[in-house]
Amino acid sequence: MTTWLPTLITQTPQEGYELAVKLSRMTIKITQPDAEARERMRPEYAEDADSLISVSQVVATHFATVAAANGYWTSKS
Amino acid sequence: MTTWLPTLITQTPQEGYELAVKLSRMTIKITQPDAEARERMRPEYAEDADSLISVSQVVATHFATVAAANGYWTSKS
Amino acid sequence: MTTWLPTLITQTPQEGYELAVKLSRMTIKITQPDAEARERMRPEYAEDADSLISVSQVVATHFATVAAANGYWTSKS
Amino acid sequence: MTTWLPTLITQTPQEGYELAVKLSRMTIKITQPDAEARERMRPEYAEDADSLISVSQVVATHFATVAAANGYWTSKS
Amino acid sequence: MTTWLPTLITQTPQEGYELAVKLSRMTIKITQPDAEARERMRPEYAEDADSLISVSQVVATHFATVAAANGYWTSKS
Amino acid sequence: MTTWLPTLITQTPQEGYELAVKLSRMTIKITQPDAEARERMRPEYAEDADSLISVSQVVATHFATVAAANGYWTSKS
Repeated sequence: MTTWLPTLITQTPQEGYELAVKLSRMTIKITQPDAEARERMRPEYAEDADSLISVSQVVATHFATVAAANGYWTSKS
Repeated sequence: MTTWLPTLITQTPQEGYELAVKLSRMTIKITQPDAEARERMRPEYAEDADSLISVSQVVATHFATVAAANGYWTSKS
Repeated sequence: MTTWLPTLITQTPQEGYELAVKLSRMTIKITQPDAEARERMRPEYAEDADSLISVSQVVATHFATVAAANGYWTSKS
Repeated sequence: MTTWLPTLITQTPQEGYELAVKLSRMTIKITQPDAEARERMRPEYAEDADSLISVSQVVATHFATVAAANGYWTSKS
Repeated sequence: MTTWLPTLITQTPQEGYELAVKLSRMTIKITQPDAEARERMRPEYAEDADSLISVSQVVATHFATVAAANGYWTSKS
Repeated sequence: MTTWLPTLITQTPQEGYELAVKLSRMTIKITQPDAEARERMRPEYAEDADSLISVSQVVATHFATVAAANGYWTSKS
């Protein structure tokens, strides 16, 4: 596998949030490597409120890690 | 995408809570960019107790991050 | 919105727990502002073991934040 | 309400775990104050593997807080 | 109840993980003390992917606590 | 059981993420030691969006621990 996660450091909180989204999705790629299977499941969660809330929970957990890694970006505030 | 998260720092705990709500909702916007699809799902979770509890869980997770970023707002208490 | 969260600091762990309960409920008020709709849902979760356990999970997450904000109330013990 | 949580400090990790169990149950008492209603729900979760796993998750979250409050009881080890 | 949790300190990360598994199971023993009832439920979760994932979540939460208690075992690495 | 977790320290964030995936899977191996039973369950979660999201949540929780253990790999950035 090529490098997809060189660092947890980002320039801004928003880029940190985007990294959290990426970290959330990567488990799904690793667990279900078949891109077509993943594509078939997309409507299953993108049209389902509870699935979207669950995705938000995963992103929130990763964002906590990324924010801590960046010292909450407070040196810039 | 325009800047929607310039900082995690807020003046008060209550503004920190409001930021946590915003952080929770943003994943849903990113995962389901179609505003009409999101609107169709609204009754699905706004009228369902378990969905609302799940939303609360996501907000609680983000609030932990925002609170830590702000040193729990203790220098002001 | 009026001020409902002026501080995370409480005098005792028990008051901190009560604040965690309040923090858990506030997301539901924000997401479903209609008081009647919330009242209609009450039996849906107050009589359902799994819903009550989920509420406990949200409170546990907020209590972790409130406890950290208060230094675990250890200077008073 | 009488005092049920005077401190998060316990003598041993095991007492800390028991406190985490108590913290988990207290939300249910606050959210569903009717003791008979709670008793009716007992078989619903005590005989259901998924409910028991969910209860374990709540206890795990509270145990993290209690353990941190006690400095992980390491000064005694 | 006899002593089952004398310390959170373990010699290695792997023993810490085993302790996290034990901490996860103990709530179930406390909440459902009937060993036969627990045995009846075993196929319900051991053959169900979602139940096993939920168990993994509980273990992950306890492992975070045990790892922090042990300073992440970094002085030995 | 042979040694499968000698350390939480990894060279890069990406290796830390891979370790988090391993930590997530290990509970399932311990709880359901029968390899054939695990194999039967694979389609149950690998083709189900909600199961994959739940797996992501477990990985996110372990990744937080591994990242903290490694000081967020910041000395190398």
